[in-house]
Amino acid sequence: MNGRRYRTIWLEGPDRAAVRIIDQRALPHRFELLDLRTVEDVRRAIKDMYVRGAGLIGAAAAYGMYLAAREAGEASFDADLLKAAEILKNTRPTASNLAWAADAMLAALLDRPGTRAQKIGEARRAAEAIADGDAESCRSIGLCGLEIIRALAERKNGEAVNILTHCNAGWLAFVDYGSALSPVYAAFDAGIAVHVWVDETRPRNQGASLTAWELGCHGVPHDLIPDNAGGHLMQHNMVDLVITGADRVTRRGDAANKIGTYLKALAAKENGVPFYIALPSSTFDFKMRDGLREIPIEERDPAEVRYMAGKTADGCMETVLICPDSTPARNWGFDVTPARYITGLITERGVAEASEQGILKLYPEHSHE
Amino acid sequence: MNGRRYRTIWLEGPDRAAVRIIDQRALPHRFELLDLRTVEDVRRAIKDMYVRGAGLIGAAAAYGMYLAAREAGEASFDADLLKAAEILKNTRPTASNLAWAADAMLAALLDRPGTRAQKIGEARRAAEAIADGDAESCRSIGLCGLEIIRALAERKNGEAVNILTHCNAGWLAFVDYGSALSPVYAAFDAGIAVHVWVDETRPRNQGASLTAWELGCHGVPHDLIPDNAGGHLMQHNMVDLVITGADRVTRRGDAANKIGTYLKALAAKENGVPFYIALPSSTFDFKMRDGLREIPIEERDPAEVRYMAGKTADGCMETVLICPDSTPARNWGFDVTPARYITGLITERGVAEASEQGILKLYPEHSHE
Repeated sequence: MNGRRYRTIWLEGPDRAAVRIIDQRALPHRFELLDLRTVEDVRRAIKDMYVRGAGLIGAAAAYGMYLAAREAGEASFDADLLKAAEILKNTRPTASNLAWAADAMLAALLDRPGTRAQKIGEARRAAEAIADGDAESCRSIGLCGLEIIRALAERKNGEAVNILTHCNAGWLAFVDYGSALSPVYAAFDAGIAVHVWVDETRPRNQGASLTAWELGCHGVPHDLIPDNAGGHLMQHNMVDLVITGADRVTRRGDAANKIGTYLKALAAKENGVPFYIALPSSTFDFKMRDGLREIPIEERDPAEVRYMAGKTADGCMETVLICPDSTPARNWGFDVTPARYITGLITERGVAEASEQGILKLYPEHSHE
Repeated sequence: MNGRRYRTIWLEGPDRAAVRIIDQRALPHRFELLDLRTVEDVRRAIKDMYVRGAGLIGAAAAYGMYLAAREAGEASFDADLLKAAEILKNTRPTASNLAWAADAMLAALLDRPGTRAQKIGEARRAAEAIADGDAESCRSIGLCGLEIIRALAERKNGEAVNILTHCNAGWLAFVDYGSALSPVYAAFDAGIAVHVWVDETRPRNQGASLTAWELGCHGVPHDLIPDNAGGHLMQHNMVDLVITGADRVTRRGDAANKIGTYLKALAAKENGVPFYIALPSSTFDFKMRDGLREIPIEERDPAEVRYMAGKTADGCMETVLICPDSTPARNWGFDVTPARYITGLITERGVAEASEQGILKLYPEHSHE
């Protein structure tokens, strides 16, 4: 951005009392930063999607726990942290990074000796480690995924590899780099010709507003398409590869991701297009097996379906109603793509087959759960 | 509407010099009528979608040919009509009703004896017959489809039959009744409990703006959903039946319909949900076999993807940009659902299996084409 490299979230101020975020509600039309100073600020920012995306809400929860440590009483420190973790975990039900990060913070902070100031220092180090770890995982995902794109490029004789993605799993969805887009950036930076089909991703348009913006900033060739178009493109050999992110992946490889991902997975299977999910380890939920039965699917405000926000010809932000005044709507945020439709899972440890056996080969420490 | 029953198109004025339409660009927020007085008016109304939907653009083309007869010279009558037919057929490439109606008008009018006034009278009768035939076909489609819904209702013990539809194939898409929605109205009017999942149908939102409006006016229970949601609903047994319309169906049963229909057909097949296409005979193209290779798919203005129109809180109509200023977009209007995903074709002659054999059983007069 304007020659400066940004993460999506970081600590700011002389005593690092504020969590500074890119306010993603304003994108793509305005680039605005916002300071979160309390656990309540962080709760609202996650719930109302000032920040969103699997890795980023995990990092936000970690920084929220750091703010909780700053707010906590000397005597009630552990109890206050437990309360904050509950509040943060309850903001959004589907993503596993949220609980993963809050629990990692609790593990680092509960039942510890030391002064309040020492514990706050520890909370800060733990939160920074989670954020750094997220960025580092995403960088590695990019390098693993790059090899998949390189192999496809070799068959295309210089023609661009056409990659379809749904929603935003770019650097805006993580602390940096992204999951699904990290291999795309890595390939582009390595000089491989790529072109991205950007699903607009109704109802909140994260594709149109965030993925298109990211790719535009990076100079990656792309076209925005309605979510309805992917099947047609695959039928006509205009997609070489699908990569999306995920909000939770079970130990068998079933993947919850933004609503509509499943429809693209069906079309990919039917048309012989490889379909990959990219995720850091923190997105796995090793306690779950059957994603369709077990993963809780968030239902959000119907207003997100009924209204659409954007920029008017005057350059103002405006929200418009796109249906009759009295039309009711329903708004599930995610769907589950069963493992059998997934070609592979691109993680920071390598590419896993989407099966319990394939996943445990990369994550043997979870074999006996 | 306000106690008056409307068709979507009719002749108006003392000497029937105007074709009056419901201007569908203003729905659902305003109900406006508009008079078309020249072939050029009709061309623009079809191309820019003041009127849309398979049956309605067929009827509009027929009335356009009537206006062409009124505009034609005495000596150049046949040549002028042929020219008008070309202009009207070229407005939209995918729908077969357009060419069907223009050709039916030519067959009724070319190489005929009689005065200019007699020929204009004949053109008017032929156009009215096409419009009446469209309405009557749609009424019959409703009665055929009603039996499918009734059979599903019997298994649901009074619970509503959940029907998913994509785009608008209601009375607004035809002269009256509709294709996909005609069975829904027939079932509702027969006292069967039904509930409709209305795909919003990006990019032009015909579901959100037209289907939701129609169903609301008729009192049929429904919920608006993003196009992304249908797969999730089918995975969770929340859809009993899918019915959509079609813009062109080949003699083997491949169906072109609004972009995104194919994705719903895949999900229906995968989840054991019956998937029907409802169409009048005029939508068949008996000259085509392989829909995926042969049906021309219209590509429309990318602005339809980049901008969204709706009503502001002040009640004004406004258009907003939903992506960055420089984001390119692509906009294919239709996709093709291969026959193997279609449970049946609901026509005014009955329900046909989606295969050449099944279709020709109902249409034996086309066996030797």
